[in-house]
Amino acid sequence: MDRYTNRLQAAVESFGQLVVGIDPSESTLADWGMNDTAQSARDFGYEIIAACEERIGIIKPQVAFFERFGSAGYLALEDIMEAAREANLLVIADAKRGDIGSTMQGYAQAWFGDDSPLRSDALTLSPYLGPSSLSDTIEAARDVKAGVFILAATSNPEAKQLQQAKGNGRTVSDRVLRFAAEHSAGDVGIVVGATVNLAEFGIEEIRERDIQLPILAPGFGAQGAKLSQLGEIFGASSQRVLANVSRSVVSGGVGEIVNQIEKLKAEL
Amino acid sequence: MDRYTNRLQAAVESFGQLVVGIDPSESTLADWGMNDTAQSARDFGYEIIAACEERIGIIKPQVAFFERFGSAGYLALEDIMEAAREANLLVIADAKRGDIGSTMQGYAQAWFGDDSPLRSDALTLSPYLGPSSLSDTIEAARDVKAGVFILAATSNPEAKQLQQAKGNGRTVSDRVLRFAAEHSAGDVGIVVGATVNLAEFGIEEIRERDIQLPILAPGFGAQGAKLSQLGEIFGASSQRVLANVSRSVVSGGVGEIVNQIEKLKAEL
Repeated sequence: MDRYTNRLQAAVESFGQLVVGIDPSESTLADWGMNDTAQSARDFGYEIIAACEERIGIIKPQVAFFERFGSAGYLALEDIMEAAREANLLVIADAKRGDIGSTMQGYAQAWFGDDSPLRSDALTLSPYLGPSSLSDTIEAARDVKAGVFILAATSNPEAKQLQQAKGNGRTVSDRVLRFAAEHSAGDVGIVVGATVNLAEFGIEEIRERDIQLPILAPGFGAQGAKLSQLGEIFGASSQRVLANVSRSVVSGGVGEIVNQIEKLKAEL
Repeated sequence: MDRYTNRLQAAVESFGQLVVGIDPSESTLADWGMNDTAQSARDFGYEIIAACEERIGIIKPQVAFFERFGSAGYLALEDIMEAAREANLLVIADAKRGDIGSTMQGYAQAWFGDDSPLRSDALTLSPYLGPSSLSDTIEAARDVKAGVFILAATSNPEAKQLQQAKGNGRTVSDRVLRFAAEHSAGDVGIVVGATVNLAEFGIEEIRERDIQLPILAPGFGAQGAKLSQLGEIFGASSQRVLANVSRSVVSGGVGEIVNQIEKLKAEL
């Protein structure tokens, strides 16, 4: 298998910076007229993957919406991940895991284990236990040519309570950015919400110079930021951004996914 | 079903403050001479539950060590949780979940859903997206008479990078403590490592007065703190502490669990 950074770059060069989310929430399944079951979550994922094949390079399943069905939900997620691999889609598992070192080994085995049914190309991580607590997980990802995205600044209104707190004169978000920059070989990225005020989070640097890190950016489409404004929002680092869209892709129902994807791609 | 706080109180009154972890890591299963499979994780959990029945009130499965087997691991965890319920053990699912509001609904459905196979008495949460981002999850727990434990101060050496950062003059750990105190009806607790220097994390208040919140405290036994020092460590809030022991319970192999539990209980 090719190196993660090369696969990521190839995906973006072929299909652009759009990352399509797979978020089978109760309300979205209801909008689609589906029962709220693991089988519906699986079918929902299959539909999105079929529409993404040869149009999109990267998908991002939201693990919470599978976990809500317990083991049956994880089985659905595993099936979706296999379908994604067959469709040559990179998979970013959005799980936001974060724990102490020995426990993180368990999560690393889940998402980066050689034979794990959940094996992903990348995983989102939470740095609450300190960014450095994620070092071994980064190594585990690197060993199997995968990557991670560490939460830096999120767009929910409550985020500032924590992410703007300061240690040694730097915000939490800034420290995450610096940690990622120090440890990345193209395989450690950050998560930054597209509607975040970068200056308030102490990371306006992202706009001012090319930070040379992959940036996973939720918050486009239904959540408020316009894809056409990506350059304005992320400035000098814009070409690093993986722009996540989820609800806007599926809002028109199954028959409209391809049209929605084409429309969103055209906005970028 | 009785209220969570009443169940928690009854468990502690009957069996004391010890919480036994179920941590089927690769190394622990190897120490037990078991293959590294989901079935082994299940058998490991059953052995611990059998030893805990009528001796211990609360168990804490570490979700990462089940997730590493994907859906098969979650099925093992579901079986263990059912066995725990039959043995009248309260279950704290140690998953450290944390995400934005709409996604947290997915996690709430997983761990607090009426018919969910993963339904728990309590769940550990990560406040990286801001403590207030967890409000709806607290409500979801309360609706089914369950509780949560929010990570305040963890004992890993990297934790201070983030948890000691300050906003409005208060550390992150202190803000988590205050959020929990404001929102708890006995059902919102905090996680504080037993080897943490409370003053450095800005939460020495825990020792100085009874904070009247459940405190889940890992770090006893193999991880460094002595159960006999619980009163010294947590001072005025000592009676609120749920002292977690994991490795020390299983270090002697399956034949020694009961003896280890009795020994640890005697140390408290």
